Amino acid sequence: MTRTAPRATEPSPWSPREAELLAVTLQLLQEHGYDRLTVDAVAATARASKATVYRRWPSKDELVLAAFIEGIRQVAVPPETGTLRDDLLRLGELICQQAQQHAGTIRAVLVEVSRNPALNDVMQQQFIGQRKALISHVFQEAVGRGEIATSAINDELWDLLPGYLIFRSIIQGRPPTRQTVQALVDDIMIPSLTRPTK
Amino acid sequence: MTRTAPRATEPSPWSPREAELLAVTLQLLQEHGYDRLTVDAVAATARASKATVYRRWPSKDELVLAAFIEGIRQVAVPPETGTLRDDLLRLGELICQQAQQHAGTIRAVLVEVSRNPALNDVMQQQFIGQRKALISHVFQEAVGRGEIATSAINDELWDLLPGYLIFRSIIQGRPPTRQTVQALVDDIMIPSLTRPTK
Repeated sequence: MTRTAPRATEPSPWSPREAELLAVTLQLLQEHGYDRLTVDAVAATARASKATVYRRWPSKDELVLAAFIEGIRQVAVPPETGTLRDDLLRLGELICQQAQQHAGTIRAVLVEVSRNPALNDVMQQQFIGQRKALISHVFQEAVGRGEIATSAINDELWDLLPGYLIFRSIIQGRPPTRQTVQALVDDIMIPSLTRPTK
Repeated sequence: MTRTAPRATEPSPWSPREAELLAVTLQLLQEHGYDRLTVDAVAATARASKATVYRRWPSKDELVLAAFIEGIRQVAVPPETGTLRDDLLRLGELICQQAQQHAGTIRAVLVEVSRNPALNDVMQQQFIGQRKALISHVFQEAVGRGEIATSAINDELWDLLPGYLIFRSIIQGRPPTRQTVQALVDDIMIPSLTRPTK
């Protein structure tokens, strides 16, 4: 069996001071939203010089994306509950929480990333890859326990659970709830992952 | 059996001249993207006065949302292929096509709608409701043919198919393909909709 080490648990790529600046950015994002965030406010709140911030992240977009990725990274650890169902429930609830907390940032980041190939590279390498490793790890553990067959895992759809929950979080009016996650796991993910396959 | 009439097939709410202005808007959106679209350009291209456009749609955001909804409405007709699988495949391919063609507009609209409750009302009433009616119709037809049980339809997750495909279209790097739709239908939707339920 091939196990994919969950890169989510890798140490932070940032120095303690950089991590502090990113934490301040994330806090200001949650308080004031993407539009009203300024690099100046981040520097002032963190008692850093603007030059220090700009040296590391030359634009607001880069700073926001780094803060968002680092904030998610810190909590993206494998649930290790012992069953696939509970792992997926735990993961789904965490994604709901994060996606709703950061819905405005996600909407803004999707626009910025589509305009800026360099930002897109950062997102692909530091975020999507990490997410995929985490979910593959959960599936592989379930294979190891004999809960599902390797052939039931569809690489094309590895991000169905986070993708749908993020969609529900960024479209107005129907934020996903605990009930959404439970329906997604019990009525969609488990029937699909335990279906008979060749 | 309750059948939901697919509102998708209702006549256009717009006059022929209004429909023409919306068609021009959609065409300019596809050519130049959301950011570079101006109401002036729409008026000039359609040989209308700016006042005519602004009278009906007082802001660019309202014009864009109306054009987007009208463009989608025109093609959102029930597939009526005779089987649930083929209906879902047809629907999924159509959604992929639309979502990729309009990915930039969707990203921009998500941001604008989150800032503007009036725009959100328009989206909920004229778009989400229509989509839900269309998909409920497809499911109810399958119930009528004895392909699935009513109890297998989860109202909480009615938008799983469009939601995931739209997610894949607006996040960079992995636009959904025919293969994505097929996997989603055969490995996810059908096993879920035909699972044993009480």
